[in-house]
Amino acid sequence: MRHFKTLTDRERAIFEAGITLGAIYHQFSGTPVSPETARDVARCIERAAELQPCVERVSVDIDVSERDTENYGGYTEVSGRNLRVRLVTRCGDWEAVARLEYVEELEYPLMWIEEVRRVRD
Amino acid sequence: MRHFKTLTDRERAIFEAGITLGAIYHQFSGTPVSPETARDVARCIERAAELQPCVERVSVDIDVSERDTENYGGYTEVSGRNLRVRLVTRCGDWEAVARLEYVEELEYPLMWIEEVRRVRD
Amino acid sequence: MRHFKTLTDRERAIFEAGITLGAIYHQFSGTPVSPETARDVARCIERAAELQPCVERVSVDIDVSERDTENYGGYTEVSGRNLRVRLVTRCGDWEAVARLEYVEELEYPLMWIEEVRRVRD
Amino acid sequence: MRHFKTLTDRERAIFEAGITLGAIYHQFSGTPVSPETARDVARCIERAAELQPCVERVSVDIDVSERDTENYGGYTEVSGRNLRVRLVTRCGDWEAVARLEYVEELEYPLMWIEEVRRVRD
Repeated sequence: MRHFKTLTDRERAIFEAGITLGAIYHQFSGTPVSPETARDVARCIERAAELQPCVERVSVDIDVSERDTENYGGYTEVSGRNLRVRLVTRCGDWEAVARLEYVEELEYPLMWIEEVRRVRD
Repeated sequence: MRHFKTLTDRERAIFEAGITLGAIYHQFSGTPVSPETARDVARCIERAAELQPCVERVSVDIDVSERDTENYGGYTEVSGRNLRVRLVTRCGDWEAVARLEYVEELEYPLMWIEEVRRVRD
Repeated sequence: MRHFKTLTDRERAIFEAGITLGAIYHQFSGTPVSPETARDVARCIERAAELQPCVERVSVDIDVSERDTENYGGYTEVSGRNLRVRLVTRCGDWEAVARLEYVEELEYPLMWIEEVRRVRD
Repeated sequence: MRHFKTLTDRERAIFEAGITLGAIYHQFSGTPVSPETARDVARCIERAAELQPCVERVSVDIDVSERDTENYGGYTEVSGRNLRVRLVTRCGDWEAVARLEYVEELEYPLMWIEEVRRVRD
């Protein structure tokens, strides 16, 4: 498609990984969650994100404990502090492995590319 | 709790139903979805909403067909046009049954209270 | 409209207030914000929420300080801890005054009805 | 930062552009909007997105007409069909120009990189 002529396959794998991480974070932040429902919410995020262009597979973990639910509502919500994502995009022969995780020393839910690799199959 | 002294139980059941419908709509609108993933997304919405105060049970249906996915992305997204919700809140002896559904003649995803009833158990 | 025959005007003012509070919270949680941009984001929330059915006026405050931006990103995000809303809905002769605010002793961003009153004009 | 050693500056400008487009779309889809409020909502999106890492400037247009508000609610919402974004990221000597716009022939709100360029200042 002409819109992607500016990028190599490697670059587009990186671009699409960025889109999907930004999408996940901003779509699902604020979703009510508890230890009992964390797996169902994570599964929903995985299945939703896997529909996006070039996304091959997505693995989501929402790290909530009973302690997080000791408040008036009895639950917490998906946030940059408890959301962990690892996803793989592919464009042509290139795969990008992207991650989202709260990094304590940065006090920030960082999104980064862990690896970009050539694949053949 | 002093914050709720202004409302009767019946009124609070209605208020909490409103909160949860507004929350569902604005949390999940825009989520990528396809016929294959609609059940998982619906289940996530149900489980998330059931955590909110006074919510007893939530039933969600996302009405997507293959036709909706015939575009570049191959998927569609949760929206006012395909989302249907029925939920029950309870406060004291009162239950409210609330619904969200696209109403064609209004061209609008309407949220309304279908019934408010006294229960005893 | 037949959908609202189950509620009195007073009850519907309460219901619509609930919808709008739930909508605001779940639409805007996660929005990047800093002390410099807080007013623009608050204004956007006010103007968006005032479009919803029966909503008369909305006043939003996002309480962010420089301390909140001392992290890798240099900003924070709209959340239950910094968002304060006061809104008025009206249905027929009835007005409801609703609020959203983080309540420390509950460790929870509470949504409640502060007052319901009859008006005439 | 060690997390970004896998990418060149050029690639990181592309990655961060992807994150910000995905973030904008999924944060603000569903926001109530009318011709009268479109500019305030667009401004909020611009200011929020400009806080994200490596983002230099963001220009947002929400294309809503009176026709879009001829429904029960009297407003419409931000969606892939009316949202247009152009943003510039910078990392080291590299700038990426990214866009989001609904492409009729794709029936899809496409996100793409329009240009990547070396800058010096």
